[in-house]
Amino acid sequence: MPRIPFADLVVTLTEANLALGLIGDRAHLCARIFAESSRDGVQSHGLNRFPRFAATVHNGSVDVNATPELITAAGSGGAAIAIERWHGHLGVGPLNAHISMERAIALARQHGIGAVALAFTNHWMRGGTYGWQAADQGLFAICWTNTGRNLPAWGTTAATLGNNPLVLAIPRLNPGRTHAGAPHVVLDTAMSQFSYGQLSMYARRGEQLPVPGGYDANGNLTRDPAAIEQTFRALPIGFWKGSGLALTLDLFAAALSGGNATHQISADPLRESALSQFFLAIDPTLLGPASESGAASEVDRIANGLLEALHRAPPTDPAKPPRYPGEETFRLRHENLRLGVPVDEDIWNEVKALR
Amino acid sequence: MPRIPFADLVVTLTEANLALGLIGDRAHLCARIFAESSRDGVQSHGLNRFPRFAATVHNGSVDVNATPELITAAGSGGAAIAIERWHGHLGVGPLNAHISMERAIALARQHGIGAVALAFTNHWMRGGTYGWQAADQGLFAICWTNTGRNLPAWGTTAATLGNNPLVLAIPRLNPGRTHAGAPHVVLDTAMSQFSYGQLSMYARRGEQLPVPGGYDANGNLTRDPAAIEQTFRALPIGFWKGSGLALTLDLFAAALSGGNATHQISADPLRESALSQFFLAIDPTLLGPASESGAASEVDRIANGLLEALHRAPPTDPAKPPRYPGEETFRLRHENLRLGVPVDEDIWNEVKALR
Repeated sequence: MPRIPFADLVVTLTEANLALGLIGDRAHLCARIFAESSRDGVQSHGLNRFPRFAATVHNGSVDVNATPELITAAGSGGAAIAIERWHGHLGVGPLNAHISMERAIALARQHGIGAVALAFTNHWMRGGTYGWQAADQGLFAICWTNTGRNLPAWGTTAATLGNNPLVLAIPRLNPGRTHAGAPHVVLDTAMSQFSYGQLSMYARRGEQLPVPGGYDANGNLTRDPAAIEQTFRALPIGFWKGSGLALTLDLFAAALSGGNATHQISADPLRESALSQFFLAIDPTLLGPASESGAASEVDRIANGLLEALHRAPPTDPAKPPRYPGEETFRLRHENLRLGVPVDEDIWNEVKALR
Repeated sequence: MPRIPFADLVVTLTEANLALGLIGDRAHLCARIFAESSRDGVQSHGLNRFPRFAATVHNGSVDVNATPELITAAGSGGAAIAIERWHGHLGVGPLNAHISMERAIALARQHGIGAVALAFTNHWMRGGTYGWQAADQGLFAICWTNTGRNLPAWGTTAATLGNNPLVLAIPRLNPGRTHAGAPHVVLDTAMSQFSYGQLSMYARRGEQLPVPGGYDANGNLTRDPAAIEQTFRALPIGFWKGSGLALTLDLFAAALSGGNATHQISADPLRESALSQFFLAIDPTLLGPASESGAASEVDRIANGLLEALHRAPPTDPAKPPRYPGEETFRLRHENLRLGVPVDEDIWNEVKALR
């Protein structure tokens, strides 16, 4: 795969966004979010996803000019309220999500903790984006989205749930003093064992999955990606457990935002719209040691202790040292910033033609 | 198994708690929490766990008279701060957890959202307890605990992580109008596929696990519970995914509470102490429709729609209709209130002798 300088990726995607009708800073920010996913090694939600994003703009699923609107008036509570409901007006998913996390962060800086429940928004692309966004500003975060119907609940054969990616982020505040120079711990995990994107990648390479990923036509667990693509019976992580997590995350976000639950959202990726999301941020400087630097060094001390214990644990395979969530992302990020971001040549040409 | 009236269970456990040195209402509340776990079908963290709880009081792991102390002064932010850090002083786990969730609820009633990070506490027994506690008062909740070392991180062979039970609760506010009379959706799930308690139950019955639960001595995935009890290599839900969840939940709670991460906590259940926990509550009446009854009916409408879609989904086995988290708990609760709570006769006699 050819490698493209990160800055070129951002410029090209900005021009493509302008051609799609996004204006000014919005075109640039949306481009940066897509480009950063590719830069961090998550091609599936970076450049490779952009043509589908463009298609959802063209078919009207995404309104490029819509911006989120505050719904909660917070009544008489007024300034004391630390959680808000917003309406996404079917705007650009990554922009709506970015704005919502910024708002949760602003509330957290005021109240120690802040949250936004966002309804009627669109696919946020890589969930981890919003975890890094908070951690880069020194905040803890939890966020998740529901999705279209792509996951059968445990004990059923038809999808009523989504794979509902969940993100947890813990900042490390003095990167200079931290392990291996990687500042943050950021987990981004869907509630299915594999996404359909991953299944089709394995199928194209003619490979079996490393662990069972769903059911075949006979109702047996299988590692054959093509068989699962046929039945649409992907497996929740931990069987009944991931099914319960997907259901409660869906209901939590839908009920707090006043929006749709997955069963109301199209299973067609081009019509997967009007999603519900939840964003939570916590400012550790408002609940720990009095000084900001005291809070930072306390978080770092606890994080470093945990991550060092992980790195000291005996590996199953000596060639594969254990890693924490975000560690490989950070390594790839710096490799790709140095060498250029690998791009699929066909998709790169397709996106250039969108400008 | 003999069945004991719920009220008798509470009385006997209260007397046992008084004998352990708990005073007044604390003896009763702690007894009620244990008894409710048995009433709800979670014997492992109800009556059956009480002898081990008594042993941790006797060996000094649990201080029966300690109460949690507010650490965060909230500085100049004062009344606007919606998250607090508390020190558990190695008090009684279920009481510390109950008090922390009550405090998160009080903060949520004031700020829409409220949270408590609790350090140096003890085993909270059944996590679901604190989800039901919030939902019964009309609040959404998320809470989790870390534990002693009982789960190897993905790619390692020695436990540095805990199974860190995670609870999500969504209240249904007008039970009269809800499906099957079961008001709340409450998920309580550990990050391991099976607990060691479950493994030993399967082993005693001479049964294989329904799905792989860990690794045998040759490093192969196995459904043999005894083999996993030997290697201590239990499996995280979703392999690398549950491992990442367990790690980030541990770090999130430890760093916000200023307490221990799992690698610092004893793997010996009798010395598993000084845990870190996180409690979050959200009051839906402060961010949705203006009136309290409007908020209630909106949450119920969204929840009922989702749960009806689940119940309509074609079951894998027609004899086993799909269930949502909390549904079976609620059914068992009413059965056990009607018929009496089933108890293991030996353990029942052992607890009676503690009085």
